[in-house]
Order: sequence, then C-alpha cells, then structure tokens
Amino acid sequence: MTTGFFRDITEIPYEGADSTNPLAFRHYNPDEIVMGKRMEDHLRFATCYWHNFVWPGNDPFGGQTFDRPWFNDTMEAAKLKADVAFEMFQLLKSPYYCFHDLDVRPEGADFAENTRNLNEIVDYFAEKQAQTGVKLLWGTANLFSNAKYMSGASTNPDPDVFAFSAATIKTCMDATHRLGGENYVLWGGREGYETLLNTDLGQEDQQMGRMLNLVVEYKHKIGFKGAILVEPKPQEPTKHQYDYDTATVYGFLKRHGLENEVKMNLEQGHAILAGHSFEHEIATASALGIFGSVDMNRNDYQSGWDTDQFPNNVPEVALAYYHILKAGGFTTGGTNFDAKLRRQSLDAEDMLMAHVGGMDVCARGLKAAAAMIEDGTMDQFVTDRYAGWQQPEAQAMLQGKRSLDEIAAHVEATGLNPKPRSGRQEYLENVVNRFV
Amino acid sequence: MTTGFFRDITEIPYEGADSTNPLAFRHYNPDEIVMGKRMEDHLRFATCYWHNFVWPGNDPFGGQTFDRPWFNDTMEAAKLKADVAFEMFQLLKSPYYCFHDLDVRPEGADFAENTRNLNEIVDYFAEKQAQTGVKLLWGTANLFSNAKYMSGASTNPDPDVFAFSAATIKTCMDATHRLGGENYVLWGGREGYETLLNTDLGQEDQQMGRMLNLVVEYKHKIGFKGAILVEPKPQEPTKHQYDYDTATVYGFLKRHGLENEVKMNLEQGHAILAGHSFEHEIATASALGIFGSVDMNRNDYQSGWDTDQFPNNVPEVALAYYHILKAGGFTTGGTNFDAKLRRQSLDAEDMLMAHVGGMDVCARGLKAAAAMIEDGTMDQFVTDRYAGWQQPEAQAMLQGKRSLDEIAAHVEATGLNPKPRSGRQEYLENVVNRFV
Amino acid sequence: MTTGFFRDITEIPYEGADSTNPLAFRHYNPDEIVMGKRMEDHLRFATCYWHNFVWPGNDPFGGQTFDRPWFNDTMEAAKLKADVAFEMFQLLKSPYYCFHDLDVRPEGADFAENTRNLNEIVDYFAEKQAQTGVKLLWGTANLFSNAKYMSGASTNPDPDVFAFSAATIKTCMDATHRLGGENYVLWGGREGYETLLNTDLGQEDQQMGRMLNLVVEYKHKIGFKGAILVEPKPQEPTKHQYDYDTATVYGFLKRHGLENEVKMNLEQGHAILAGHSFEHEIATASALGIFGSVDMNRNDYQSGWDTDQFPNNVPEVALAYYHILKAGGFTTGGTNFDAKLRRQSLDAEDMLMAHVGGMDVCARGLKAAAAMIEDGTMDQFVTDRYAGWQQPEAQAMLQGKRSLDEIAAHVEATGLNPKPRSGRQEYLENVVNRFV
Amino acid sequence: MTTGFFRDITEIPYEGADSTNPLAFRHYNPDEIVMGKRMEDHLRFATCYWHNFVWPGNDPFGGQTFDRPWFNDTMEAAKLKADVAFEMFQLLKSPYYCFHDLDVRPEGADFAENTRNLNEIVDYFAEKQAQTGVKLLWGTANLFSNAKYMSGASTNPDPDVFAFSAATIKTCMDATHRLGGENYVLWGGREGYETLLNTDLGQEDQQMGRMLNLVVEYKHKIGFKGAILVEPKPQEPTKHQYDYDTATVYGFLKRHGLENEVKMNLEQGHAILAGHSFEHEIATASALGIFGSVDMNRNDYQSGWDTDQFPNNVPEVALAYYHILKAGGFTTGGTNFDAKLRRQSLDAEDMLMAHVGGMDVCARGLKAAAAMIEDGTMDQFVTDRYAGWQQPEAQAMLQGKRSLDEIAAHVEATGLNPKPRSGRQEYLENVVNRFV
Ligand SMILES: [Co+2]
Ligand SMILES: [Co+2]
Ligand SMILES: [Co+2]
Ligand SMILES: [Co+2]
Ligand SMILES: [Co+2]
Ligand SMILES: [Co+2]
Ligand SMILES: [Co+2]
Ligand SMILES: [Co+2]
Repeated sequence: MTTGFFRDITEIPYEGADSTNPLAFRHYNPDEIVMGKRMEDHLRFATCYWHNFVWPGNDPFGGQTFDRPWFNDTMEAAKLKADVAFEMFQLLKSPYYCFHDLDVRPEGADFAENTRNLNEIVDYFAEKQAQTGVKLLWGTANLFSNAKYMSGASTNPDPDVFAFSAATIKTCMDATHRLGGENYVLWGGREGYETLLNTDLGQEDQQMGRMLNLVVEYKHKIGFKGAILVEPKPQEPTKHQYDYDTATVYGFLKRHGLENEVKMNLEQGHAILAGHSFEHEIATASALGIFGSVDMNRNDYQSGWDTDQFPNNVPEVALAYYHILKAGGFTTGGTNFDAKLRRQSLDAEDMLMAHVGGMDVCARGLKAAAAMIEDGTMDQFVTDRYAGWQQPEAQAMLQGKRSLDEIAAHVEATGLNPKPRSGRQEYLENVVNRFV
Repeated sequence: MTTGFFRDITEIPYEGADSTNPLAFRHYNPDEIVMGKRMEDHLRFATCYWHNFVWPGNDPFGGQTFDRPWFNDTMEAAKLKADVAFEMFQLLKSPYYCFHDLDVRPEGADFAENTRNLNEIVDYFAEKQAQTGVKLLWGTANLFSNAKYMSGASTNPDPDVFAFSAATIKTCMDATHRLGGENYVLWGGREGYETLLNTDLGQEDQQMGRMLNLVVEYKHKIGFKGAILVEPKPQEPTKHQYDYDTATVYGFLKRHGLENEVKMNLEQGHAILAGHSFEHEIATASALGIFGSVDMNRNDYQSGWDTDQFPNNVPEVALAYYHILKAGGFTTGGTNFDAKLRRQSLDAEDMLMAHVGGMDVCARGLKAAAAMIEDGTMDQFVTDRYAGWQQPEAQAMLQGKRSLDEIAAHVEATGLNPKPRSGRQEYLENVVNRFV
Repeated sequence: MTTGFFRDITEIPYEGADSTNPLAFRHYNPDEIVMGKRMEDHLRFATCYWHNFVWPGNDPFGGQTFDRPWFNDTMEAAKLKADVAFEMFQLLKSPYYCFHDLDVRPEGADFAENTRNLNEIVDYFAEKQAQTGVKLLWGTANLFSNAKYMSGASTNPDPDVFAFSAATIKTCMDATHRLGGENYVLWGGREGYETLLNTDLGQEDQQMGRMLNLVVEYKHKIGFKGAILVEPKPQEPTKHQYDYDTATVYGFLKRHGLENEVKMNLEQGHAILAGHSFEHEIATASALGIFGSVDMNRNDYQSGWDTDQFPNNVPEVALAYYHILKAGGFTTGGTNFDAKLRRQSLDAEDMLMAHVGGMDVCARGLKAAAAMIEDGTMDQFVTDRYAGWQQPEAQAMLQGKRSLDEIAAHVEATGLNPKPRSGRQEYLENVVNRFV
Repeated sequence: MTTGFFRDITEIPYEGADSTNPLAFRHYNPDEIVMGKRMEDHLRFATCYWHNFVWPGNDPFGGQTFDRPWFNDTMEAAKLKADVAFEMFQLLKSPYYCFHDLDVRPEGADFAENTRNLNEIVDYFAEKQAQTGVKLLWGTANLFSNAKYMSGASTNPDPDVFAFSAATIKTCMDATHRLGGENYVLWGGREGYETLLNTDLGQEDQQMGRMLNLVVEYKHKIGFKGAILVEPKPQEPTKHQYDYDTATVYGFLKRHGLENEVKMNLEQGHAILAGHSFEHEIATASALGIFGSVDMNRNDYQSGWDTDQFPNNVPEVALAYYHILKAGGFTTGGTNFDAKLRRQSLDAEDMLMAHVGGMDVCARGLKAAAAMIEDGTMDQFVTDRYAGWQQPEAQAMLQGKRSLDEIAAHVEATGLNPKPRSGRQEYLENVVNRFV
C-alpha cells in the first residue's frame, strides 16, 4: 500500500543506457560488479530528508512553491512524511537515508518535548527500516535554524546555548545509535562569525573544541561504532565558518587532539565555495587520513551561494570517485545527496527524476573511475614522475639525514643544475577523457 | 651625493594633515608618540626591492613600461640599483627593507656563481646599511621565477630541485643573518599543483615539511635570532598553493612539529584571494599564537589575481592595526609594502608618491586603531558578550568537567531555554566610524 | 502619541562629530549647506519598508529572529506597521520612504482583493504623509515573492502571469501617482532564467520590452511626472537576470526604443555582484544619460550574495557621491537604504542605529565629494590628460573627417611614434585621501 | 621536408574511440557527416599563432620555460616560426589559423618598418597557404602589448596613439584581406580603465565608437567580404574593459549605429570572467543577431584570471555547440583555440597532444549537440512551455494591442489567477546526459 504521493509510479527499473524513460535508471544497476564489488556497495547512496521533505521551495526573495500534504508541524504529518520518504527511498533503490532531528519531528516547546517527539519518530523509523531494509547512513542535529542558534551553537557567547546544543546532540546521537546509523555528522552552519567586532576567536575555538571532545567521549561511552564526521563549509549562512575546509578542520582536530577520532564529510558545493575542487578536498582528506563520506551535490560555479544541485557532470564526478577509490573507497561513509530540486520543479516526478539523474551520473562516474584505475596509466605516470625520490640520496634528505648546509655543500660541489621536465597536464587530461 | 634618479627631490618632509604637497607626509610622523611608543617603532615600515627595482611593468598581456638605468643583469647595474634603492629608503624614512636573492644580484650560471654574486652584493648592502641606518626586515629566496622551479621548489618531483632550493635557502639565510635581518621569510609560490592528475599530495607534504624543518634546524645552528615566517597565499601563480591561508599553515606546522618555531607573514591581498578579510587572518594567527609580520598591500576585491596595490582605504587598514595592536604589536615583524605601482605609473615620482600615500594611510590607520583601544568601548562590548562563560557551571562545561549526558540531563531538568540577544553589529560598525 | 515600539526614544538629534551618543547624528545635519544646497536636498534619504518592517530575519538556513507586534497578515497589523514606519521615518529625519505593494497590504485572495487592500493602505499613507511631511521617493510592485512569479513576471512562459503582473504594476503606479511619488521602480528579480535548457531568450526579451513600453505608455496616460527607473542586478534570486547591469539595461532600452524614457536605480550591492564598482555603474549611467537614483546599501565583497548591509566605508561612499555630483546630483532620485539589519540585530534600537550610522556615512561622503569637486585637482587632471583631443587634427579624426587609410598615411608620413605618459593612479588616490 | 621540430611525427591519424595512441584522433574525423555536413565544415577549427609560437611560458611570477629555436626577433626566425606553424596546422588537420601582426613579424622601429615586416611575412604566408591549403580564419592587430598602448589604443587619452592604432589596424586589415581571411577581429584588451579617477568615460566611448566605424568604413572601401568581429572580455589585463560581454557590446554597437555591421567572437574563458556561462553568451548573441565565431578555450572556473586552457569537458562543449547549431552553425566564423599549454608542458608533443585532445572534445561535443537537435525532445519542451503565447489574447498583448489598464481590467474582470507549472530543470539536465 502506497501513500499515493507518487501516484502510479511503483518502480524505477534499470533499463540500460539506451532507455529514454525518464523514470528508469540508465546506469545505476545495484548488482553490477565494478572492481569486484557491487555497485550499490561502492556508491552507498543516501537520500536526504531535509531538502526533499521539509524545504518548501522558498529562497531569499520568494516563498513557498511546493505543495506537500505533510506541510504542517504535527506528529501525524511527521508520520505521513516518513511514509512518503521511505516509499521514495524504496522507489529509488536508495540503501540509505540521512536526517536532522528538526526534519523528522514536530518542534516542541522545550528540550524535553523535542526529545519525546524525536523518540516517537525514531520508533516509527525503526519499524520503517525493518520493513523496507533501508538503513541510516547518518543522523545529525539541526543547530542552525532556530533563532536560539543565531550566534552559534557550541560557539555561542551564551553558555546556555552551548548546553542546549550539547543536550540536543546527545539525543540525536542516541537516535542515530538506536537506528543503527553508520555515522554521526556535525555541520557547524552557525559556528563562525558575522563580524569580528563582536567575536572572541580564541574563546569560541575553545568552546568548539570542547563540544567535539564531548561528542567523541559520548560516542565511546555508548559504544557507538560509527564514525564522527565534520562537514566543512567556508561561509553561508555565516560570514565566516570555522570549519572552512578540510585543511582548516585538520588543524582544528590536531589542536584539540581529535585527528584520530573524527573524519570529514565532504560536499562538492562547499569545496567550491572554499575555492577548491571537490577532488582536492577528497585527496587532501585522504592524504591526511581523515576521509569519511561525501555529499555529492554540486554548486553552480558561478553562484556565490550553496545551490545544492544534483550532480550532472560525469567527468567531474568521475574524478571525485577516482580519488575516493584511490583512498580505498567508502568504509562507513557513502554518497549522500544533500541536494534539492530547483524551486520551480514542483512535482513528485521531479523529485524522482532528479535523484535518478544524479544516481546515474554517479554510476557513470564510478565506472569511469574504476576503468581509470584498472587501466593504470595515470597512476603509473605519477609514480614515474616522483621516481627520483626513491634514490638513496633523495631518501636521505627526505628522512632528515642531511642538514641544510650539507645539502648546499653537495650542490656546490657537484655543480648540480636540474633541468625541468614536462608536467604533461594536457596529455593526462586527454587520458581522463578516454574514460568519461 | 645622489644617483640623480629622483632628480631634485632630496627630502620628503612631514607637513601635517593640511599639506597638499604630494611629496610630503601628511600623517606619518616617525617620532610622534602613539600609545606610548614612537610611530616608527609601531609601524616598522619596510620597502621591498622586487616590485620597486626589478619589475619592468609587464603583465600577462604586455611588456615593459618602466625605463630604469639599472635594467641589465650585471654587477655594475646591481650596485647602481642598490644606490637608488637605499636613496629611496632614506627619502621615504623607511627604517627597513626586504629582498629576495634574485632581486639584488645578477643571475649566475650555477649555484656557486649565484652565491658569489649574492655575497658581493651583501657586502655592498652591509656598507649601505652602515651609512644610512636602514635595516633589513627580512630576506628571502626567490624559488619561483626560474624555470627549474616550475613544478615546485621543496615540493618538486625532482629531488635535485629540492637540493638546489635547500642550498639557495641556506645562502639567503646566511645573507640575512649577516645583514642583521630580523626575520627570514618563505613564500611558496610554486609549492602546490597545477593539476592533481600529476601530483602526489602526501609525498609533497612530506617534502615541504622536511624543508621547513631543515630551515629551522639551520636557524638554530647558526644562531639566527630572527623569526622564521611563512607567507600564505591560496593560488597564483599556482592553481593551488599548499600554504593556502593561516589556518591551513597552522595545520601544516602542527603536523610537522613546527608550531612553536614558525610564524606568519600575512598579506592583505593573499587574505582576500583566500576568501578572508585581512583582519581575519591577523586575528586567527594571533589566536593561534603564530602572528609575525604583514605585507600591507591590498588587492582589488574584484580582480581575481594579486594586484599588490598600495593600501588606500583607512577604515580597512585601521581594523588591521586594531588586531595587530591587540596581538601586542609587532616584535620582529613590521609593515612591509609588497606593493607595486600600476604599470602606467612610469616615473620616479610615482614610486615616491605611492609609498608616501601608503605610509600615510598606515599612519592614520594606526592612530585610529590606538584610539579605539584607548577608548575601550569595543573591547568592553566583547568582554560583556561572553561574560556568561565566567560563571562556574559554564567554566565546568568548558574545562571538561561535564559530560554530554550530564549536560543533557541538566538542560532537561531545568527546562533551560536560552533567549537570543542582539549582536549589535551595526552599532559596533558605527563605533569604528567614530575613529576612522 | 507614539506606538511605543521605540520606547522612550523621541528624537535623534544632530550632535556633531564628537558625540558618542549612539542615537545621535554626528554628520547628518539636514540644513547644513554643501555646495550651496541643504544637505537634506542633496542626499534625499529614503527609508525602505520591506527590510525594516516585513523581513522576519530568516536566511536560507534559519527562520525568524525578529519579533514585531505587526507580524500577521491583517489590515489592522498593516496599519500598526504603518504607524511604526512613519514614526521611524520621522525619528530618522528621513524625508522619503519607498515600498512594494506586498510590504504594506495584506495579501488578498485575488487581484481585486489585493487592489482593495492596497487602496485602503494608500488612503492611510496619504494621511500619514500629510501629518508628517514624509514623502514617497518611489513605489514598486513585488513581482517576485509569490509562487506565481517563480518563472518570471513579464518574462513568464505563461501569458496569464504577464497579464497578472501588468495589472499589478498598474495598481502600484496608480498608488505611487496618488501618493505623489517621485519615481516608479522596476526590479526584475525573476526576469531571467534558472537554466537555458527551458528558456527562449528572444521570446522573453520581447515580453520584457513590451511590459516596459506598457509602463511608459501608462505613465504618460495618467500624467505621472516621476521617472521610471529600472534597478539592475546580475543574479540572485535568479541564476541569470536580464537587467544584469547598467550597460546591459542600456542595450535593452535602445532595442525597445526606451532610452529616453527610463533611467537607472543603482545599488552598490548589485554593482558588486556584476563585477563592477558602484562608481562604475553611476559613471556609466551618467555617461549614457540614464542615471536616476541609488540604493546605497553595500554588499560584502566576499559574499557571493546580496547582503544588503548599511554603508559603512566613507571613502567608497565619497566616490559614489563624487560621481553623483558630477552627474549633476539627484533630480527625482535620492539615496534609498535598501538595507537590512543583520539578523542577529534584534532590537528597535538596532534599526535606528543602523540608519543613523548609514546616514552619517553618507553625509561624510557627500561632504568629502563636494570638497573634491570644489578643490578641482582631480577634474583638472582628467581635463589635462585628454587635452590632446582638443587639437584640430584629433577633432577631425574624432568627428569622422578622416578615414582609416588617411590616418595610416599620416602616421607613416610623419613617423609618428607616441610616447606613454604616467597615468598617476597612486597620486590621484592620495588626492582622494586628502578628502576622506 | 619538415623543420624537424616535431621530430618523427609526420601524421596524426584518426583511429576511433578505442585508440590509446596519444597522437591520434579518437573523435575528430574531418570527413564524417554530422547533420548532413562534414565535421570539418561544422567545426572550422583554427589554430592560433600567439600562444603556440610566441608565448615563452612566463607568468606573473616566473619567466620563460619554453625553448624554441625561433625565439629571437629577426625575420629569419619569423620564417622558421612560420614553417613550424604551418607544419603543425597540417599535422593537426586544422583547416584554419589566426594571428596578430606582432605574432608573425619582427617588431620594427616605427610604423613603416612594422608594415614592411608584416608585408614580407604576408608574402611568405600566402605561399604557405597555397602549398598547404591551410586558410586564414581571422587576422587581428596586437594593440595591447607595446608600452604605447598601456592606456588604451582607440581609447587612449593621447590622439597620437589612436592614430597609430588606426594605422596598424589598416595594415592588418590589408594583410587579412590579401590572405583571404574570413573575418577580422578586434579585442580591446587595453580599451578600458585602471581607475575612474583619471578617466573620461564619455570621451573614450566616443573614440572607441569612431574607431569601429573607421574599421567598418574601410572594410567596405576595400571590398573585404569577411565579418568584423569584436571579442568581449570583462577585465584582465585592464581593471575594467569596455567590451565587457555580449550584452554590453550590443549596446555599444546600437549607440554607434553598428549593430548590423559587427558580430561577436566569443570565448568561453571571457564569458566565465563576466559571470556568464559560455552558452549564455552564444545564445544571447544569437538572439540579438550578432553571433559570429568562438574561441573554444576554457578558463578554470576557480581562477580569477584568463587561463586559456584547452577545452576538456564534453558536456559543457556540447551545450556550446547545441546553441551554435541552433543559431544555424558557423558562417564565416569557426572554432579557434585561443588556448595555451600549461607552462610546465614543455615539449613539441605537448603542443600536439593538447590540440588533439581539444579537437576530440569538440568533435564529441558537436556530435552530441547534433544528436540532441535530431532527437528534438529539448526543443519541443521549450516550444510547449511557451505555447500559451500563441493564443490570440496573448499575441494581442505582446504586439502592443492592449494597454496596461486594459490588461488590468481584464485580470480583474476574469479573476485570473495563474497557477505555476514545473520548470523541469532536472528532467532536462537528464535529457542532456543521454547525449554526452
Ligand atoms: Co551545501
Ligand atoms: Co552537505
Ligand atoms: Co601579493
Ligand atoms: Co607578499
Ligand atoms: Co540588493
Ligand atoms: Co535595491
Ligand atoms: Co582569453
Ligand atoms: Co580569445
């Protein structure tokens, strides 16, 4: 029995690349084997609750455009919303979903009512998960929408907001744990500042470090086995956000002794806003040992805000998966669509087609990335380019067995005068184009 | 006896705010006391060698526009250049200067000749310094202009380039030490990548960490008392530079055990390119304990490249000095103008007027910043805003004496429901405008 | 009798530059004479209705932060809102205000009810204007917030939306006319596209040109003597807006025969988003004969969206007024604050202080601009720089009396070889700094 | 007989999509028929002279990296350069090339010598063209590199520079005409300003309008049948360039009566810098009737300067050709690569591989675009979306047969209340992905 929201759509089949059916997969074929693993197990798709089931289509200059039967803040509506959501997860063959507390429960008058409401919905989700087999990729707390968080959650000048935030995180971690979530995510949309004029950077850093330590301590206390993930973003809504990008979060983790406890949830759109390519963020996190999961939604390169669009450029997505696969692929992480429809895409079909298109783009990207790795040309090129560092004298320098003046003496004595070698960027870009 | 380059200009007097003389200071009055210290000792101005005496006025679409008598790569020309340079430092009452090796010596055929040439010029500079009283704020090595550095200096795939770079740094540290330089700077203009396709991030990180450790070790070995400074920049010339911004460099320093050995040389233009305000970078470095020195040249906010213009906006410069003064002011650092004329500003007078204007803007900014601090309104506002954190329960949370579930229990038990308070941004901006 | 919203604040006096009273003007002194004219008559300040009295403080990641007694969509609330608004206009000594229909009236079930509601409020406004002396700088129609406009108003693929928009504009023009408004503004926030894939550019251009012609025809029909103004903006909310910037709108006006009928309402924030300085837009509009009015609210240069902040940088504002004064100053136009509080600035005082600060910045900018003009150094420099064009042969070329081959023959015959002259940018920037 | 520059490379064959030969075409097959026309005749590839044969690999922070035997400014070297260039055009099966005067001839002491040098090379080119069958897509004058143009060519404050520029354009138009060039291009890299402080916008507009009229008059005088093309760019090297983008140039053409005489040469990189997508610029020019030709080189979306990279993203290039084909395809225009190697790509092979990759990307893009057009789904969608405008009442509004008050009366009378319809953006993006 369905909710009727998707009318007569009861299945989105895989029909192969030649299909012109807008409600069929052309590339995402969950059981297809890529590099020895099922495509579903590589991609670990998750569908998000907030953009799909909560956002009314407003933007800074306009109001609601979507008309959904569950748009009122009652428990009944929350359950109808859950019914439609799980129906959609199944239609999309999406093995996972993600949510914030605020997405799924009615807003209560206080913390206690919030908690009761959340717990009631968690019960309902637990049933839904059991019925459908859909799993929770990650849970998180919305610590940015309510006015009380306007000046920050953990970094609020008011310690009561810190406390309220901590309490809210605890309930969300409990909910995630109970639902078997594979990760718990923190996105600090209000952890930052609007103006330095009213801000004490050092104090806020201390607060934020403490909160993340609280989270990690509590994770161990309750035996949550999932990963704790931080999602960086440089700005928006806040003028400056502390979790600016991977490199910044790494420094924060080191400062607070958390670099072995916390990993990154990386979003293409946030990478772009920080001036990076998505693959840069993935490769950086991987090199630093803190790669976790991705939000595979793109920003328009030419809009200065977070457009959270579904991915649609296969060559770009392929490079992202190339670096994910080189990092060993996902463990607890996955491919979440923190993506929203354009506000003019009003219909239930739009929601399905957007996901189908995004999932197909990811599937193509994954297959291309796997082919690049199996081909090996690119990897070999890099190995060869740095081969000189395998020589004994180079290793001696690298391992700290030569001092600056010893190296200088050697350069002077040998008249060493290195000649540049081509970096072959265009060749390598052409190689990529053989696969995408 | 003068070089004649500045014709009949033999002094740039301080004439006060009402002067309309384009070759007089209106605000920079070295001996004027600000917050108990001479203005000169606060600002510690430095004039750079490269943009003033080396750059021919070219840009990516056009060639030389400047016509300077020392534009040929001989030792004789190098000495004429030095004569004009020190004459300008004196005219400008600039207590300091800065240089790269390549700026000051003819390019040799190999490392040995480079070193001989540099040493000959260092002798000449030593005399000049003694004659004029002008001092060296910092020296540095140019590891980015020569084709051999096209794929990086310390991060080059070729270990011979690493060695050549190390040797060059050694000679530049020696030169800086001998000239009594108060800092040694590293700007990694080519330490980064053009494309991830040919790059091993982890390997390059290891190389760069080793090089900075070599520098620090050598500093201690030779007894150099100055600071080692890293100048961050996110991109340009390189697509991505590893020293992206202060937060990124902090993470790098922590990773390589250098956070107590190395400080930051921050440039307004580079802050902008990284998506930050200049004061953000200063305040961040200060909060992290790694603030060192500044390059006080601005970028056009709307050009995507490094325009290195002289500062001209007093309100912005005042906020920079506000954070510098709050950080305790400069110790070894100073206010360097890594600034260049527009390429249409052809004349010797342009060079002088540009500096005079920039120095006056800094002097106004400093005086305004000092007044803000002496007034105390802004500081008091911040203190009051965070006052709640001084309460015992807040301190207990902050110092790790409360767990997440304890805090949650407390929130639930007390029905704690914090109310937002105004952040007063506009009020604070108005307060700033009382001083600028 | 007051509404009580501003509690005990009954006057915002002018107290001069030394005042530290946050609710006093330090520079805006309406009767002070600048270049022979009262400051009020130069600046022609207007306070906007929407950001001050309608916006609840939401942003894309958070909801309402402001708590205002008139926040419900009834006629009674609309009148309370008007009471507070006119009280604020008086407190601020703001001679003008501006509004959209949607800001001031309850939303009706259909066009007829909208019109009735608007007319009822217009009656109320007429009384208020008579009581207070506050005048209407401009009226406008909100053709972007309601879902029906999501795909454009005049450029909607559905001609019914065009018709509905036209009807709405008519009622707003009638209202503006009746209230003695001095201008009527069109901002095409949804006139553009989200994706070219579903868009017919030529068709939409034709629609938009027709609508603007309808407006101009109706203006003449009803004898409205004010100016018709278009407010350009490149993007946000729409991915691409047709009224991108002044130069683009000029081409549109020429194409549709409207270049003598329509002028520009220029906003600093929109100039920035289009990649221009504010003074560029003013100077361009002035050179093209289409300068009208300004929205003097700034964007953060480093946020990619429209932050609509109050102006706070005197040197920038001074350059804007310099070009406005050079264009002859405002005629029907004025200085509107299309500016909003930061959403953390919760209180009634914040609203007042923000305007006071912005008005003071404008007053300082105006005085500085006037001083620059009276001084004449800058203008003379420009005149001298182009003086060669006054020579007869230069004039002959410019006026089309020489052909390309004639000029070439002349160059060859005379061996003409022009020498570059310094552009003196830094000198001129220093001159500006004598006044700001 | 070859120059030996490309060593043993004597042919770049078409080998089909499965080839892994880096010096073979995988998609560009000149004689393959696409939509009834040879691929070569659709794409009309041109190879540029400047980036390939003149640029030494420098950037703002580094010098020469390329080592080419023709790098000296003699006539002999100019001819060797031409030999290599035509050899490369043939290797690449590039039917066209493009050049500036400065690229191909030694710089003379004065205009007369420049002209003699150019003419000598034009003779040499004429022979080369006859021997090889390679044709000239367009010629142009370099009016930006020499210091005399630093403050503009036609817009220089010095009328002698205007005259020198005019004379230079005349010789370049003559050369282009003589070589059978199919277009003549003007790129105004220095037509703009660095600072408004020294600039008279109205005067410079008049100068620039006159120059373009001179060009058009001369074209007709000599019977040149090719198109006159303007290449817009918003900034770089100049802070603001007058030919900002297509819409801006359109306004300029209208103002100077040139809209039927001049068309656009559009570059992806310049579109990006102006805040537009490439397809936006093409579709806009097409809607305005001024589409001419393209420079198919991309910018990095995240670098703020003109990186002039070879195209490598098939989905983006496909959308460009989709709009070109919808505009009727090229007439005199073509696909020029105003693209340069990365400066680390040192070798002759890099130059070939870069072009091969770019041409293959274009070929794939063209085939995809043709398939989208033949499929018709997208076009039909757009037609259906605007179908309402075909109704009589809609046409009456559009054609000016209804006044604003008549429309309002109609809306009121009928209670017209339009309902929004989905814009289907994600669906359409998915449709595109069926073809790329
Ligand atoms: Co996002
Ligand atoms: Co996300
Ligand atoms: Co710089
Ligand atoms: Co610097
Ligand atoms: Co705005
Ligand atoms: Co506005
Ligand atoms: Co370009
Ligand atoms: Co081009």
